[in-house]
Amino acid sequence: MRSLLLATAAAVLIGAAPPKKLLTPNDIVAQSPASAWKTIPADDLMVLSLANGGRVVIQLAPAFTPVHVANIKALSRGGYWNGATIYRVQDNYVAQWGLNESDKPWPAGVTAKPPAEYTRPLKGLSITALGSPDPYAPGAGFADGWPVAYNVKEGWADLVHCYGTVGVGRDLSPDTGTGGELYAVIGHGPRQLDRVIAIVGRVVEGIDKLSTLPRGTEALGFYKDKAQYVPIASIRLASDMPEAERPSFEVMDTNSPSFDQYLKIRANRRDDFYIRPAGGVDLCNVQVPVRKKA
Amino acid sequence: MRSLLLATAAAVLIGAAPPKKLLTPNDIVAQSPASAWKTIPADDLMVLSLANGGRVVIQLAPAFTPVHVANIKALSRGGYWNGATIYRVQDNYVAQWGLNESDKPWPAGVTAKPPAEYTRPLKGLSITALGSPDPYAPGAGFADGWPVAYNVKEGWADLVHCYGTVGVGRDLSPDTGTGGELYAVIGHGPRQLDRVIAIVGRVVEGIDKLSTLPRGTEALGFYKDKAQYVPIASIRLASDMPEAERPSFEVMDTNSPSFDQYLKIRANRRDDFYIRPAGGVDLCNVQVPVRKKA
Repeated sequence: MRSLLLATAAAVLIGAAPPKKLLTPNDIVAQSPASAWKTIPADDLMVLSLANGGRVVIQLAPAFTPVHVANIKALSRGGYWNGATIYRVQDNYVAQWGLNESDKPWPAGVTAKPPAEYTRPLKGLSITALGSPDPYAPGAGFADGWPVAYNVKEGWADLVHCYGTVGVGRDLSPDTGTGGELYAVIGHGPRQLDRVIAIVGRVVEGIDKLSTLPRGTEALGFYKDKAQYVPIASIRLASDMPEAERPSFEVMDTNSPSFDQYLKIRANRRDDFYIRPAGGVDLCNVQVPVRKKA
Repeated sequence: MRSLLLATAAAVLIGAAPPKKLLTPNDIVAQSPASAWKTIPADDLMVLSLANGGRVVIQLAPAFTPVHVANIKALSRGGYWNGATIYRVQDNYVAQWGLNESDKPWPAGVTAKPPAEYTRPLKGLSITALGSPDPYAPGAGFADGWPVAYNVKEGWADLVHCYGTVGVGRDLSPDTGTGGELYAVIGHGPRQLDRVIAIVGRVVEGIDKLSTLPRGTEALGFYKDKAQYVPIASIRLASDMPEAERPSFEVMDTNSPSFDQYLKIRANRRDDFYIRPAGGVDLCNVQVPVRKKA
């Protein structure tokens, strides 16, 4: 008691600042200036409208997998996904949708055999390092708003599998998948799929519309009966929707001072609940902030 | 063509073995001898029977959090959870159950203020190292069938937050929670909670009964209306159930040669689909094999 009183008196005497508030990651997001955010172009947002009324919004990543993303845009615009369903939901792994082994012809503009876009050149990316070791690559961090792994010596970077990551279903190697069958991660990031599958984006809204679906009981989580398939009413690019209906989102600039602060606090939480800062963080536990634009 | 023929002829001539089959993690599990498995004691299995007919089975971890686990057994045996519900489901985080801010008295045998069982002595554990770097601790691996982090210099080990991990809800520090409110991880392992919360076990069956629940719309995923609470019919230890109803499970011995092989293949998959072995693995992506006993 005595020492507390003394400390208070001393603080008054020397005009010391009050104890610094211990910020949470949410505080950083709330306090960040407008300059720390980048709007996602409407042409890079894809909207899955489920027949049950649910909506899933996906941000595409053309800077990483340009041919696959161009395919996905052509598939959407060409009406390929009319009649598409979610036909596979595997617990702690993925929800997958498309036409499921259809022989429907590809619309115009689709590259039937895309190249293996499993990595891209590191050159041209401005990387913010994670600052913690990564089990899957020599380097891990953030570039252009995305979590990435990278190898300076070999000169490549790649998008990684975290919760909400969207990738391209494919058959056995060397097939890379055309983009007609897509999945979203609904469990612990299956990083073993990095550089084995083409990643084309991430869910920015409505992942719970996928993660709460009943799990399929067949091998790999496929639904047993077609009656269980979850119908998708439409898959459209936001840029093809009437302006009044278009969703709009912004992503925190991973080169901004706000993101730097957010990353440091994610690795060392010190608020009232976190009695022991971790001193490190897993790439998939940083979760680049994304928010709806008014 | 010529070289292939020559190689075939040579193989015949020297009696070489056929090319080695590229094993998957499932192959290792299927081929493992009975000696690679340990039965979970019935007193360490807790069965949540949901009113809707779903069942969730949890393996408790008394070797790591003895006071909290003893509390949970006393709560179960003392009927504390009569009327319990699942009242919080936060996407990519946790599903939480119990009585939710009840003032019901603790049954006999419950320690109201357990010690901070966030780590245990490293001594006495036989560790199989992960062999990949971990962002949250100097060491990571497996002990006694569980994924653990550890620090040789400081002499501690702790259970970690992976998909399916069960922990004790608590208020702000220095409260450690009594065990009446529990959660299971239903998303990417929130490792930032390691050594901040007491971990008491993991779900070994029925995690999908939790992961598919509708997400709560209040802050932190709490359900808004009590009508949304998911009723739990009973929470019992398997050892307290009639023998005919008892579930029985076994866990792969993490000191067995089978587990060593399984771990190496998890870090370096080379089957037809995995065109590029990762050369590393995240602790939570190893998933110690657990299976039902006949």
